[in-house]
Amino acid sequence: MSKTFEKLQPYLDKSMALQTARNLFEWDDQTTAPFEAAEYTSKVIGILSDEYMKSMVNDDVRKLLKKLQEDKEQEELTETEKAIVKELGKTYEQLESIPPEEYRAFSELTSVSSRRWAKAKKDNKFDDFAPYLKKVIEFKKKFAGYRAKKDKTPYEILLGDYDECFMMKELDTFFDRVKAEIIPLLKEVAKKSETIDKSYNYLNYDIEKQKEFCKYLSGYVGFDFNRGVIAESAHPFTLQLHNHDVRITDRYMEDNLESAMFSIIHESGHAIYEMNIDDAITQTLVGGGASMGMHESQSRFYENIIGRSKSFWEPIYGKLVDTYPDNLKNIDLDHFIKGINKAAPNLIRTEADELSYSIHIIVRYEIEKMIFNDEVAVEELPEIWNKKYQEYMGITPSSDAEGILQDTHWSWGEFGYFPSYAIGTAVASQIHACIMEKMPLDDYLKEGNLIPIREFLRDYIHKYGAVKNTNQILQEVCGEEFNVEYYVNYLKEKYTKLYGL
Amino acid sequence: MSKTFEKLQPYLDKSMALQTARNLFEWDDQTTAPFEAAEYTSKVIGILSDEYMKSMVNDDVRKLLKKLQEDKEQEELTETEKAIVKELGKTYEQLESIPPEEYRAFSELTSVSSRRWAKAKKDNKFDDFAPYLKKVIEFKKKFAGYRAKKDKTPYEILLGDYDECFMMKELDTFFDRVKAEIIPLLKEVAKKSETIDKSYNYLNYDIEKQKEFCKYLSGYVGFDFNRGVIAESAHPFTLQLHNHDVRITDRYMEDNLESAMFSIIHESGHAIYEMNIDDAITQTLVGGGASMGMHESQSRFYENIIGRSKSFWEPIYGKLVDTYPDNLKNIDLDHFIKGINKAAPNLIRTEADELSYSIHIIVRYEIEKMIFNDEVAVEELPEIWNKKYQEYMGITPSSDAEGILQDTHWSWGEFGYFPSYAIGTAVASQIHACIMEKMPLDDYLKEGNLIPIREFLRDYIHKYGAVKNTNQILQEVCGEEFNVEYYVNYLKEKYTKLYGL
Repeated sequence: MSKTFEKLQPYLDKSMALQTARNLFEWDDQTTAPFEAAEYTSKVIGILSDEYMKSMVNDDVRKLLKKLQEDKEQEELTETEKAIVKELGKTYEQLESIPPEEYRAFSELTSVSSRRWAKAKKDNKFDDFAPYLKKVIEFKKKFAGYRAKKDKTPYEILLGDYDECFMMKELDTFFDRVKAEIIPLLKEVAKKSETIDKSYNYLNYDIEKQKEFCKYLSGYVGFDFNRGVIAESAHPFTLQLHNHDVRITDRYMEDNLESAMFSIIHESGHAIYEMNIDDAITQTLVGGGASMGMHESQSRFYENIIGRSKSFWEPIYGKLVDTYPDNLKNIDLDHFIKGINKAAPNLIRTEADELSYSIHIIVRYEIEKMIFNDEVAVEELPEIWNKKYQEYMGITPSSDAEGILQDTHWSWGEFGYFPSYAIGTAVASQIHACIMEKMPLDDYLKEGNLIPIREFLRDYIHKYGAVKNTNQILQEVCGEEFNVEYYVNYLKEKYTKLYGL
Repeated sequence: MSKTFEKLQPYLDKSMALQTARNLFEWDDQTTAPFEAAEYTSKVIGILSDEYMKSMVNDDVRKLLKKLQEDKEQEELTETEKAIVKELGKTYEQLESIPPEEYRAFSELTSVSSRRWAKAKKDNKFDDFAPYLKKVIEFKKKFAGYRAKKDKTPYEILLGDYDECFMMKELDTFFDRVKAEIIPLLKEVAKKSETIDKSYNYLNYDIEKQKEFCKYLSGYVGFDFNRGVIAESAHPFTLQLHNHDVRITDRYMEDNLESAMFSIIHESGHAIYEMNIDDAITQTLVGGGASMGMHESQSRFYENIIGRSKSFWEPIYGKLVDTYPDNLKNIDLDHFIKGINKAAPNLIRTEADELSYSIHIIVRYEIEKMIFNDEVAVEELPEIWNKKYQEYMGITPSSDAEGILQDTHWSWGEFGYFPSYAIGTAVASQIHACIMEKMPLDDYLKEGNLIPIREFLRDYIHKYGAVKNTNQILQEVCGEEFNVEYYVNYLKEKYTKLYGL
């Protein structure tokens, strides 16, 4: 082992331990902690965060990192170590670039602005949130500016934090194709979609039975209960301590059958990724997924591409009907498949169907670009938002609450994050196309045998963690980098067939 | 504020945060974590523990502590700060006294010996455990030896770690009285006890209903659900992150009504203590209970003294009968009270009744004294154990599994810990007697009004945390230090009346 890398190890271990502790507090806060705990627990988390910063950003680490980035040292490193050094370089630059007092001021601001956002959304008053959003944007511009380079704008710095393979050039190409192909398709589908009766989905579905069926679904797709647990929270999410401890949550609604089912398949997709990262790299800086987008590709592959296919449900739909015979006895499999794939223009991203989902992302991406190019004032955002929804979806929000105020992300300063959702969904289609060439996917699904799929994803994607980036993984799986055409073809083929267009 | 104390604060804060994180991992391990997580999570906990050690034991803290212990500095300190300095002194001495490599070897040993103990208990083979127990004892003797002083034997050093007010002299006096008074009483009670029909307790009791009733009981005695949560675990326990986040667990058995109910009252007693510690001292070194014994006094006060009284059940027994009408409709309140107070000689400490409980502790205490006085070889322990049970209880274990092997404590090196249980139960009786002088306790219980009791305990005991020790608190509550006669009188009066002796 490289002596320099060896010297770095204790710093990496310490920051890993502190980060794992923070993750556990996060899990606990969302699933368990009592209502009044936060005030005192936040003191603990603050100290752990400071210690994390100190273990990552200090003179020793700076010197070791600089040395390890030299050509001579690089020669002594394994591929994994190189990836760790690269990742550390990015994290270090990110953490070091912001003066601590500014970072603290920003944290205090987002803690207030996120609460203001929640209130403004509830009251449907964008004006109450606007001053805070303005300040958050100012901070983000300043922070990104600290790292901006000749070849990257501040917005691209933010995009790069989520996926280094997708800068504005790549995203523009991607989204232009989606707009050209999917907007017209969505309009056609919308006309037919009205004839699908989905009232069965909103009957009364016993929560305990939902929990049991969702647990079954999770295990069915490959969630390993020896390495993971399921809990409840207000919004479903996945969180890992390491590859042997991966946790997901779900939310159950008595009057909605689909919601919890597809959430659990989605989160199980994230969890299967984390559970199958190699033992050798878990608990390192490259021990998570390759990128936000790649992670999202796995959750959406399971949720949408497999999970909403007829082949997937063929062996198990009977079990669902048996669970709720009164509600489902007259709904045959074809009806159910049409129901879970019902698509139409809609206003709320988190409730969007597979076909329209990317359109929601494009609206946000275009607005974020305008914000960071100084092409728009915060006050103008609601109008621009509404115009874009009218233009792309043919519908206009009746209020800011169901328009510009619907997402919490911006109140936390999360700009550059939304594209990951669209990248994920498109990458999933590309991987799907390549898997189909390599195995009889539909046959496996019809047999209820998801093992070959999971093993393929493990061997080509999961085990590498973040040692490879999104395009390197796609190159391995498909022999080519990201290509939007797979996504366009997938949606066109699926919806044309499903709706008999 | 004292400048020296101010300099100490960051070290105290950091160790508090790391300790809180370790507590959360402990909670998570017992209630949530998946089966295979331990191997990887233990790496995280190991690093957090090292960091905790570093934040507590270092040159800066040593110097600051030494300075703060000087008379001149003491004058500048508040009562709370003085108590913190005193507590830090004890903790520091304890942590510093053991060379790190020996401590590591000991940790590795107990990790093995505890597993060996579990196997030996299962296989009923003391000989398989004996070599490990021997090594554990050697370590504990050595460790205690590092801190032994002119006026304290090694065993007293260990006793002092749990309660500084109870050295061998105090415990000998205490236990001699118990032996003289309770052993004969227990024999008398045993004869009458056989006539109490308790078969109702072992019928089938729906687990979900048990959970609901236990939650009700917990809230009834004063557990605050805004500051606490209840979960399930293999053995009931209480754990706090701070006074606004106190967690308890319970275990439910379908064929035992009492078990979960009295466990939840017991743990709620611990929790009420922690929840009522003053905001100003939570998250400090004196932010927990005054001692193991004082903590146990509160859990046992709620569980046994209040919780097994007729007045307590008068307003709520009907609710229990309504929960299980088939099982309880023919069991009237008097019958139920006799049932929950059924007492007789018995072999297993954790299943012991209130009357015989201290006898179990005395056996362990006497054996621990012999061990640390080098008066016994490990090989002889089973025989000595069995003889003592025969002498005090009139019964002999039929196997080591229900004899010397029944408790896990020694396999972890926990010597000097058992007496706390007896101290707690005796202290509870003393507090009870003093409360009765100050308020109409029975009337309150009959009215279902537990608030005055909880407020009294808060104002005289809980709020102080560990600022006062056991005797200082008893002095405040009762105007005198620990006095075993309250305990003897309580048991004699209660059981004479209950059994018509």
